Amino acid sequence: MNKIKPQIPKGFRDFLPPQKILRQQVIDTIRNVFEVFGFEPLETPALEYASILEGKYGEEGEKLIYKFKDRAGRHVALRYDLTIPLSRVIAMYPTLPKPFKCYQISPVWRADKPQRGRFREFWQCDADIVGSESLFADAEVITTIYHILKALHFKQFKIRINNRKLLNGIAQALGIDVEKIPSLLRIIDKLEQKGTQGIKDELLKKGFQEEYVNKILELLCATDGNTIELIELKNKFRGSESVLEGIKELEELFSYLSSMRVDSNCYCFDLSLARGFDYYTGPIFETTVDEPKIGSISGGGRYDNLIGMFSNTDFPATGSSFGLDRIITVMEELNHVPSRNTITEVLMTVFSPEMQQDSLRVASALRSAGIKTEIYFKHDKLKKQLTYASNKGIPFVTIIGPDEQRDNKVILRNMVKGNQKSVAFDDLAFTIKQELSEI
Amino acid sequence: MNKIKPQIPKGFRDFLPPQKILRQQVIDTIRNVFEVFGFEPLETPALEYASILEGKYGEEGEKLIYKFKDRAGRHVALRYDLTIPLSRVIAMYPTLPKPFKCYQISPVWRADKPQRGRFREFWQCDADIVGSESLFADAEVITTIYHILKALHFKQFKIRINNRKLLNGIAQALGIDVEKIPSLLRIIDKLEQKGTQGIKDELLKKGFQEEYVNKILELLCATDGNTIELIELKNKFRGSESVLEGIKELEELFSYLSSMRVDSNCYCFDLSLARGFDYYTGPIFETTVDEPKIGSISGGGRYDNLIGMFSNTDFPATGSSFGLDRIITVMEELNHVPSRNTITEVLMTVFSPEMQQDSLRVASALRSAGIKTEIYFKHDKLKKQLTYASNKGIPFVTIIGPDEQRDNKVILRNMVKGNQKSVAFDDLAFTIKQELSEI
Repeated sequence: MNKIKPQIPKGFRDFLPPQKILRQQVIDTIRNVFEVFGFEPLETPALEYASILEGKYGEEGEKLIYKFKDRAGRHVALRYDLTIPLSRVIAMYPTLPKPFKCYQISPVWRADKPQRGRFREFWQCDADIVGSESLFADAEVITTIYHILKALHFKQFKIRINNRKLLNGIAQALGIDVEKIPSLLRIIDKLEQKGTQGIKDELLKKGFQEEYVNKILELLCATDGNTIELIELKNKFRGSESVLEGIKELEELFSYLSSMRVDSNCYCFDLSLARGFDYYTGPIFETTVDEPKIGSISGGGRYDNLIGMFSNTDFPATGSSFGLDRIITVMEELNHVPSRNTITEVLMTVFSPEMQQDSLRVASALRSAGIKTEIYFKHDKLKKQLTYASNKGIPFVTIIGPDEQRDNKVILRNMVKGNQKSVAFDDLAFTIKQELSEI
Repeated sequence: MNKIKPQIPKGFRDFLPPQKILRQQVIDTIRNVFEVFGFEPLETPALEYASILEGKYGEEGEKLIYKFKDRAGRHVALRYDLTIPLSRVIAMYPTLPKPFKCYQISPVWRADKPQRGRFREFWQCDADIVGSESLFADAEVITTIYHILKALHFKQFKIRINNRKLLNGIAQALGIDVEKIPSLLRIIDKLEQKGTQGIKDELLKKGFQEEYVNKILELLCATDGNTIELIELKNKFRGSESVLEGIKELEELFSYLSSMRVDSNCYCFDLSLARGFDYYTGPIFETTVDEPKIGSISGGGRYDNLIGMFSNTDFPATGSSFGLDRIITVMEELNHVPSRNTITEVLMTVFSPEMQQDSLRVASALRSAGIKTEIYFKHDKLKKQLTYASNKGIPFVTIIGPDEQRDNKVILRNMVKGNQKSVAFDDLAFTIKQELSEI
């Protein structure tokens, strides 16, 4: 029979134990912070009806949806993000208590061109608050982002904050047609990536008048991340209700962040932040790191009208999405985490066929104590068993031979330090736990 | 604009917080036991090339694979189980250290007819050991199943154990053609579901001779779960090498289970166990519960030749798969778990707009201490805030008014017991943790 070549589609990945251990560690940390902030877990199916996803992600996004017909001819699609499924959930179960604070940690799929740090299957970690108009909800989401990055030992990051009402108001005040504003914002969203000239060219190509384009870009590029900006804008656009409303919201939001003791070095007002999706209605935010250059690691904002696409009742909502893969890329490049090749803590060796029963007894005791224990299967020389533990990176090895059996002891070998000692069987689990905590 | 009807495809499910909390709790328990037994985490992509999955699941299974063409015209398919992707991984990364002990907890997709307890998207929890011929590996897998069900507080369950070498040997000894044995075993696999007569009819329809069918069914239905059977079989088929080899393997396996202190009431030899897949080569096992009648909750066995389909090197392997959804169905029906509607432990109320800052301060302190805390957003009357906590099932409420602020105290209300007390701010987190542990 012909062999089937073992391979996976481009843009998809296997996570072998060392990578999966790190991912799981990061997911556990994020999940814990979400829960500490009162977000409840939620999960939706990988497949949605295509009609649920279509028309939500803009022209470019639309093309990236994995769509197909199921056997009954129904058009279905793989989950593209976690916000649209959440909006569908809110509309579908109207009796869910509000405010509904929830988090999702799940893979999404996009038929994008694979490149460094961009995959066709990747994980998002979302936290959302539905059913509250309060800016305190937005502040809670931003505070949660801050605490997650702190818990992951990020040192250099900036949560850039802006407001769609402010951007819309300014665009209108500068003379841009209301219906052209979404297109304007989608282009401005790429400012950091394409630079001022790139954005200018694109705006002109899209038919925006040079006069307006210059004015807009002048404003955006003057921003230096200082909140004094807000006062300047207030003076400059005092005739625009939308601008003033946006500024008032930002001021209230910043005051909450300060009450919640979010380090003011970690967030800033940034007028040039636009965000790509059309559905944002109020505060928007995005987190960037300087090193490595990888784009944003989290983004989000308020989307008060999105759920209304599925429901007769509209629900105010705000939320944020973390890109798990980008976070892990940053952590790996900055060596934020000690890499572990194994979750196993102890290798229980087998001294000789006659001693196997005793090895099993010791292993059972360690496992009962919650210690992650592997038992060596084969009857190999002890040296070979130690080499196996060492190659795999298992930090402890236990050995029981006839002498130890007689004295009710076990030899505990610390593979990291390279020393060993004889420990009373009854003290073994405790001793290992103590030494594990010191690694 | 027309509303989009919020709905999901049949056989798919949303897990709202109460369901997701339970699922997560079960997943965490299973994961912990897997790790304690030295299995390492592994994850593969949701999409595989269709050629990887095709021809592995039998005629009926083949039809249930979700297949489609991606934009570049490549045939891809959604993961159907976790064993074939693992086999592909082993072949693709030949330098993985052996024995390779790993676990996977992931969704799989099958375009099956949805019915009670059967879904199109469901989760499997697999543990496998690759690269060891030792029957100790099979014993480790079975011991792990036993400890998982114990950890989930299952009281009545039976791990039925058989061996494909034994079944093949018996079938051959009774005069059945070697090439017809896989088909025979696939039909026998449905014995419990279809009954003796149903199986007999199906076998006759498939062209098996009545004489052989009667002999086979007589043997299978005489089984009463007693290991004395093995001795009887040994006498009856002493001329068949394959039978004797299968019996020897089972005896060795049972002796390991006894050494590992697996309760002998929880497993048994069962000659009528066949398992559906063609790829099993040695010990096979399946776990059933009497109540509720839901079929098997875990199944597995040794598959020494499967990886060879993808690789020039063959690797012996054994493993087991848990059906997460069935386990949860059993737990729910037997009330194994206290249902929780929320993971939130404390609702921090806001006494008045002036007291908001203090509420935020208390909430921050609780969150820093790892207590899952929600802050009430709106300026509602205290009574309404308490009702919110009560409806959501949050066990504790904290209140800080001007008196408490002055005395550096916080009121702690236990919503379960319906009482409240004044606690010094510095003792609050500790007090809550203590009372939480008593719930």
